[in-house]
Amino acid sequence: MPPFVAFAGSNIDRADHVRGDPGAIDNLMTTHARLLNLSGLDPVLDDDGNLAWTSLAEANADAELLFLGIEGDRGHFAQVPDMIPKAALGMGRAWQAMTGLSDADLATYGGARSLVGWHVRHKFCSCCGSPTSIAKGGWQRDCVNENCGMQHFPRVDPVTIMLVEHDDNILLGRQPQFPPNNYSALAGFVEPGETLEEAVARETFEEAGVSAYDVSYVVSQPWPFPSSLMIGCHAMAKSHEITVDKTELDDARWFSRAEVADAIAASDRGESGKAFGCPPRFAVANVLMRWWLDRG
Amino acid sequence: MPPFVAFAGSNIDRADHVRGDPGAIDNLMTTHARLLNLSGLDPVLDDDGNLAWTSLAEANADAELLFLGIEGDRGHFAQVPDMIPKAALGMGRAWQAMTGLSDADLATYGGARSLVGWHVRHKFCSCCGSPTSIAKGGWQRDCVNENCGMQHFPRVDPVTIMLVEHDDNILLGRQPQFPPNNYSALAGFVEPGETLEEAVARETFEEAGVSAYDVSYVVSQPWPFPSSLMIGCHAMAKSHEITVDKTELDDARWFSRAEVADAIAASDRGESGKAFGCPPRFAVANVLMRWWLDRG
Repeated sequence: MPPFVAFAGSNIDRADHVRGDPGAIDNLMTTHARLLNLSGLDPVLDDDGNLAWTSLAEANADAELLFLGIEGDRGHFAQVPDMIPKAALGMGRAWQAMTGLSDADLATYGGARSLVGWHVRHKFCSCCGSPTSIAKGGWQRDCVNENCGMQHFPRVDPVTIMLVEHDDNILLGRQPQFPPNNYSALAGFVEPGETLEEAVARETFEEAGVSAYDVSYVVSQPWPFPSSLMIGCHAMAKSHEITVDKTELDDARWFSRAEVADAIAASDRGESGKAFGCPPRFAVANVLMRWWLDRG
Repeated sequence: MPPFVAFAGSNIDRADHVRGDPGAIDNLMTTHARLLNLSGLDPVLDDDGNLAWTSLAEANADAELLFLGIEGDRGHFAQVPDMIPKAALGMGRAWQAMTGLSDADLATYGGARSLVGWHVRHKFCSCCGSPTSIAKGGWQRDCVNENCGMQHFPRVDPVTIMLVEHDDNILLGRQPQFPPNNYSALAGFVEPGETLEEAVARETFEEAGVSAYDVSYVVSQPWPFPSSLMIGCHAMAKSHEITVDKTELDDARWFSRAEVADAIAASDRGESGKAFGCPPRFAVANVLMRWWLDRG
């Protein structure tokens, strides 16, 4: 297990036993409780650079309140905004603010962002189109149509992200929207009806025409854009040939151990490496690259 | 990697490059194409005990057709029923039929069941309540409301399921709806904002009051009831004490290596073991127990 995993290790206890007990949630909604201050879905920082919290008195009168959990003896909540402008759904403004957060605050923020965003996008029942209402402190929404009554649960989308290795090189690709010369690990959503190992092999072949085998799990990390579970894997490639799927990627290439080491060292200084720029430390691709270098 | 993983290894190529190309899908919709025969969401078997297929001519005139992929040069499809009676959403009838399917057919069925079920439950946009329409051969649904336009993707729910070990015993629990004396591995959905390892520790503590550490990944398996990705893990327990959460479980107990070996051998004969009955081979808990026994 790599030493640093972003968006993990929140200090807030999810306190599952409280969620199903409306009285227990009410008892936590005191003047002592904390309300997470968000700007749309972006974090707001206090003067010390920590996540900013206010009190429940600051919540909008009719806002749905989500129970994030308990820290110390204080209930921690977030409110669901009526809507989020589409322009605010990307990771642009959050990305910058995130670089200054402590590891625990980053985890609290990530979980809250995913949960709040899910509520904004699930005000209606996907089964019958009726409105839904909050249940279990925000860990469920129920269809209000008695003939339907479908229960909906916060979504987590598993994504495989993989370092595929051949001849002591690893395969990295760049998406069109990446900054110039930036490369990262190939990745893709796990589909219904496949294992993690099948998803790794399918995505590697689809995106780069490379056949992967000996898939092994390395590390997992939440990724709150909007609500992925990144599942980092390693695999071996059967051969060196690459056929880039140009509908997905600008380019895919093999990078040597020395090139990856240089890119990681450069990223710690906020710079691009000589051969390529790698993702920052809160991206699991960075964690995977460090793991691969350490493993020697 | 254990030798057998249920719901994995379909012979159908998902052919992702075809999905975004309506002309290519049309070209596969010939008299040569195959339509999966389902009864609600349950499998229908032919005289040889394989999955039954018909031709697209048998599809309902206005049914949405889902592109499952290609086998040989034939397009394989499933149709979306208008609705599924609630009584048919369980695993009861499917469970029995599944026991006779080949491994490849079981995988094809599982993936199709999850995808068809998702479409039935997503005819409306969760964001605005408007109807949705099928896109990309069924691997997407689009909101028809131009002011919304949200894209929706088939859901896969990651679930951690874990063998927690102490003193060469493993912790198993029974849910109230299990057959008498049946026990299985503890399990729970991964929530937004946590790693796999955090989810394993949280669920083990919530359900049995046991603190888990040294979590390691063992195996993954799709579970199409309705669309889970089971992520099988092993962990060590800090102590022997158990506090059962009676809202989740009837009981949780430690079982010895001999008891687990007996239960697995009995399950291969379709019987219950002396100490407990374990899940059948297409449940990942069975795979995990075999893995634990083999590892010695």
